[in-house]
Amino acid sequence: MQFSSILVEQAVSEFAKLPGIGKKTALRLVLHLLKQQEPAAKDLGEAIIKMRNEIKFCQRCHNIADGDICSICANSMRRQDMICVVENIRDVITIESTQQYHGTYHVLGGVISPLDGIGPEQLNIDSLVNRITNEQVQEIVFALSPNIQGDTTIYYIQKKVTQRPLRITTIARGISFGGELEYADEMTLARSIANRQPVENYVSG
Amino acid sequence: MQFSSILVEQAVSEFAKLPGIGKKTALRLVLHLLKQQEPAAKDLGEAIIKMRNEIKFCQRCHNIADGDICSICANSMRRQDMICVVENIRDVITIESTQQYHGTYHVLGGVISPLDGIGPEQLNIDSLVNRITNEQVQEIVFALSPNIQGDTTIYYIQKKVTQRPLRITTIARGISFGGELEYADEMTLARSIANRQPVENYVSG
Repeated sequence: MQFSSILVEQAVSEFAKLPGIGKKTALRLVLHLLKQQEPAAKDLGEAIIKMRNEIKFCQRCHNIADGDICSICANSMRRQDMICVVENIRDVITIESTQQYHGTYHVLGGVISPLDGIGPEQLNIDSLVNRITNEQVQEIVFALSPNIQGDTTIYYIQKKVTQRPLRITTIARGISFGGELEYADEMTLARSIANRQPVENYVSG
Repeated sequence: MQFSSILVEQAVSEFAKLPGIGKKTALRLVLHLLKQQEPAAKDLGEAIIKMRNEIKFCQRCHNIADGDICSICANSMRRQDMICVVENIRDVITIESTQQYHGTYHVLGGVISPLDGIGPEQLNIDSLVNRITNEQVQEIVFALSPNIQGDTTIYYIQKKVTQRPLRITTIARGISFGGELEYADEMTLARSIANRQPVENYVSG
């Protein structure tokens, strides 16, 4: 594409580096910003730079934070003796938006995946084990992806923390609420039969 | 959505103001920028701010420009006696990418549309008439949308410039090259029969 302006060309090429944004979409965004008043572009640009410069990661749970400790770890209304172990920051945001979990988190930064060269030492596992040893943790809830990598990670962490009495759980897997049986994949259906629950535990949405 | 960081929340809300970008996509972009090294976010933010601050509009044709005159108007290799009249900057970029047009442009900034409150005085029509009067313009090519607003605009401009001998054309409308007759809409097909061309004029892609 020919832009007849180097400024526009640079802005388009920077936008197009973002995931899921091609040259045409990038151009649409840039032309939109040109049509707006100047503050709109300034606010966006500054929000991006400021966020990247000033963002910190919580020293306790590795979630995003504006200070040394994230707002979830700092919140005394939440159960500090319960840790939900997740893969990444997006999972924290997703779980938070359900408003059903009132403990703290621990962001691993990935899962153990030897094929991708990711071993336990690349992940925030040592700090999790430290938290479990030093804080009065009652329960760990694993909310990892239900695949071999996730299961390996759960197994590895479980082995590390056997010395303390601790409730270790994972979030429930099975047929989605509102999901029809005939559309469920066989693996999920098979596992959900194997992991069947007493009816008194059944909580319907 | 709960972000546990005001910085992230602000960046997400700024991204979500862009057209076609919702909260979820905005979050994906922000988390992507957090994963990259700091310069990636800095480059994007600065490109946006710099573009909006420093962009100029060509004093002659109202296209985007880095100086007073855009690179197309300043290019002596292009036919300066030929003006392609377009609605907006995006149309310039689209036509430029065909590499088939070697004249200059004139960006109207819209088309006459009384229902939307857009009259000739809101558009860059006076400067077009001035160019036609003062420059040795040989031909005007209208490349406007084929609807009532576009046709009205062509008619209005045409009336304004009758005093000079001038070739006035519009880009060809008809069935797309590569388009099957059976998929063409009836209006286009009907008009393309009415405007049929001698075979010697037929240029196939």
